[in-house]
Amino acid sequence: MPMLQTYPATINLDRGKLAAAIDALIGCAEACTACADACLSESSVAELTKCVRTNMDCADICATTARVLSRHTGYDANISRALLEACAMACKSCGDECGAHANMHEHCRICSEACRDCEAACRDLLAAMG
Amino acid sequence: MPMLQTYPATINLDRGKLAAAIDALIGCAEACTACADACLSESSVAELTKCVRTNMDCADICATTARVLSRHTGYDANISRALLEACAMACKSCGDECGAHANMHEHCRICSEACRDCEAACRDLLAAMG
Amino acid sequence: MPMLQTYPATINLDRGKLAAAIDALIGCAEACTACADACLSESSVAELTKCVRTNMDCADICATTARVLSRHTGYDANISRALLEACAMACKSCGDECGAHANMHEHCRICSEACRDCEAACRDLLAAMG
Amino acid sequence: MPMLQTYPATINLDRGKLAAAIDALIGCAEACTACADACLSESSVAELTKCVRTNMDCADICATTARVLSRHTGYDANISRALLEACAMACKSCGDECGAHANMHEHCRICSEACRDCEAACRDLLAAMG
Repeated sequence: MPMLQTYPATINLDRGKLAAAIDALIGCAEACTACADACLSESSVAELTKCVRTNMDCADICATTARVLSRHTGYDANISRALLEACAMACKSCGDECGAHANMHEHCRICSEACRDCEAACRDLLAAMG
Repeated sequence: MPMLQTYPATINLDRGKLAAAIDALIGCAEACTACADACLSESSVAELTKCVRTNMDCADICATTARVLSRHTGYDANISRALLEACAMACKSCGDECGAHANMHEHCRICSEACRDCEAACRDLLAAMG
Repeated sequence: MPMLQTYPATINLDRGKLAAAIDALIGCAEACTACADACLSESSVAELTKCVRTNMDCADICATTARVLSRHTGYDANISRALLEACAMACKSCGDECGAHANMHEHCRICSEACRDCEAACRDLLAAMG
Repeated sequence: MPMLQTYPATINLDRGKLAAAIDALIGCAEACTACADACLSESSVAELTKCVRTNMDCADICATTARVLSRHTGYDANISRALLEACAMACKSCGDECGAHANMHEHCRICSEACRDCEAACRDLLAAMG
């Protein structure tokens, strides 16, 4: 957020929702990276392979979306919107998958919350973009 | 492509179009990274800032799309489709932007071709996914 | 940090310093991505091209280092150490470059602080690894 | 390589070795991403978790190294060198790990070759840098 305030030109987005989305995206990417690795170290890893994969996709998509949203020079609303849609979908999918193991694995519970928060922040920003 | 043949389970996609898309995505990401840097070293960099930004977005989105398409475990067609849509849009935008400087900068000309090839490969794969 | 506590096996590192390093790396990657873009939108962009490039390198290296440090399965201390050395060097270089423009651009001032904090966190973790 | 020829300023590196390294890095990153996913779909995944992790690290480090080497504006030999050292180490480690399963899994055999080629290309470039 302090960084957003220093951008030397106009930002055509609600800065509060934008900062919230970037923070949620970065937190979700980190949670997914850690959850994928924690799953790999569970003795039940064979039942968690879809979870590992969904975590890896979600981490990559969130990290890229955070980067795109952090750039304002030559802003193209269509790309941001399409990427936010893909990202919200990845977060929903990963939140569901991790949520299914939340009772058994604390890392999945925390990660599923990060995914749901991130999905909400992406949808919030999309709504504000109109 | 040789790597695709070694995947130990079913891939629910046309392997030829999938391999073509992954190759195009990786080539486009590399071209965009190099073009962003070449723009920075042009004396006319002040007129190329939108190009640098579009290149950076396109590089990030293509790299992430290539990764997601390279994973088949727990495949989710909806995420692949949404990401391919966002990626084709970023390639179109970057191909147009670089295309506008193709007469003046050879790196923009090569990059714009890589973007158009990649957009076509993404659309081809999307069409095959139905 | 809460995520670190859920890892189901042993972590052969000081968890406090590890969490501090991961947080600093993620914050630095985000600051560098935003600073590169803010530099592109300055009217003096032609004097900031080295800054943009150093920011892009630092963002990529910090993001990758954060990912590697977030994985503990099959831990290899030599890779973590070599990557932390490269990362501390990139942070030093970017902190110096942004520091040179800190008086003129608030985004460079904030980014240079994030780089110095991150360099210190990397060196701290390296020292703890022995 | 065609892209390298269009860079508008001086490149203080052997362009042939540089192009070879970037190609090898991109190929290795892709092989490692695919091998991690193929391992997840093997029935023996529980014995391949270190392989998945090493693949993920190697993919991330190679992708970042390819990006840094693709930038020439404001070149800093020390960062390139430190990153190439870390990358060669990650490729060695992943080549060894995948090599240990090469007889059983064709994806590990192909990936281990990509890692060894990439390690050699990194060491070649390092030697040329002096």
